[in-house]
Amino acid sequence: MAKRPKVYLAGPDVFLPDAVSVGRRKKELCARFGFEGLYPFDNEISPTAASSERVDLLIYRANAEMIHKADAGIFNLTPFRGPSADVGTVFELGMFVALRKPVFGYTNCAESYLDRIKKSRGVERDEVGMWRDWTGMSIEDFANADNLMVEAPFVEQGHPIVRVASEGQKSIGDLDGFEKCLRWAADSLLKDRAGQKRRLVV
Amino acid sequence: MAKRPKVYLAGPDVFLPDAVSVGRRKKELCARFGFEGLYPFDNEISPTAASSERVDLLIYRANAEMIHKADAGIFNLTPFRGPSADVGTVFELGMFVALRKPVFGYTNCAESYLDRIKKSRGVERDEVGMWRDWTGMSIEDFANADNLMVEAPFVEQGHPIVRVASEGQKSIGDLDGFEKCLRWAADSLLKDRAGQKRRLVV
Repeated sequence: MAKRPKVYLAGPDVFLPDAVSVGRRKKELCARFGFEGLYPFDNEISPTAASSERVDLLIYRANAEMIHKADAGIFNLTPFRGPSADVGTVFELGMFVALRKPVFGYTNCAESYLDRIKKSRGVERDEVGMWRDWTGMSIEDFANADNLMVEAPFVEQGHPIVRVASEGQKSIGDLDGFEKCLRWAADSLLKDRAGQKRRLVV
Repeated sequence: MAKRPKVYLAGPDVFLPDAVSVGRRKKELCARFGFEGLYPFDNEISPTAASSERVDLLIYRANAEMIHKADAGIFNLTPFRGPSADVGTVFELGMFVALRKPVFGYTNCAESYLDRIKKSRGVERDEVGMWRDWTGMSIEDFANADNLMVEAPFVEQGHPIVRVASEGQKSIGDLDGFEKCLRWAADSLLKDRAGQKRRLVV
């Protein structure tokens, strides 16, 4: 039997009080769709084992190694401690894109980036119609889920960020959007595989 | 004369009311240090020129192309609309790291990520001593400027994120940290060049 494609599971899920069980559920769902889930929390290095090395650097290296091993990534882009996605997750997204690997993304927040900022504090349009926040800084108005550099790579690959309608912080661990991403990933990666096999046989 | 190395200028500076003049100052400083500065704002595509294509995708592609062209990147990681750096900037950092290009970073905020969150809202230690925010989500305690995935690549390259002591949002355009990064970049990139030349001559 062929090896299952490896899917890296990026997101602020690792900071949840039930980080371990969320990771287990994600990996079970991966298996059901024919994938092997790589969950960064599984890399967690204990300070005792780390000896003289900085633990943060050991975690970083272990995550980067997982990313290089992965065939694709699924990104939880739910707003985290602010109007945008978790920066750790977005850093990893940048790596995947530069490495030209398939990426799938979801957010457990249905609103656009602009609408979230509008709701949080005062914003207004300037003389040319550009939205500006309380410090005068401009706000992108593309109806995207987040900054355009975060949304665009998913659009370019043919599957924009999945937006699930529910509230911000409380639902970081919700997996409806994750399942939709898995379905897309299966359609794209496993179909490609079958196609390749057929071509090889012919 | 050899071509000047190209340095990509990443940061939320592009959202400042004086985005154009900040970019001009950054590029002037680059030239003074022997670099050519690539400022993403110079790519800005006007909606009229874009015709049927989505403007956000055109901007994304133009920025990604600049990143691929660049020899190094300098990242403004000042907290932006929350306790972390701008996600667009961090996405680009991930690309640079995956492409194995030198990166230099600064933040116009001296505090650690944990201290910023402590200040903003209630946090407390759980039974094992882990810091948790108001939603129960854990907070990294590595005294870093931001999430470990953002800080670690700079440490790995031998120059941690430069922290400039000043207030958050107001000082996104301050260039003291930027200049320090340029000095580091010159030491590392231009010295390497000179070394290479010497080796070639010998």
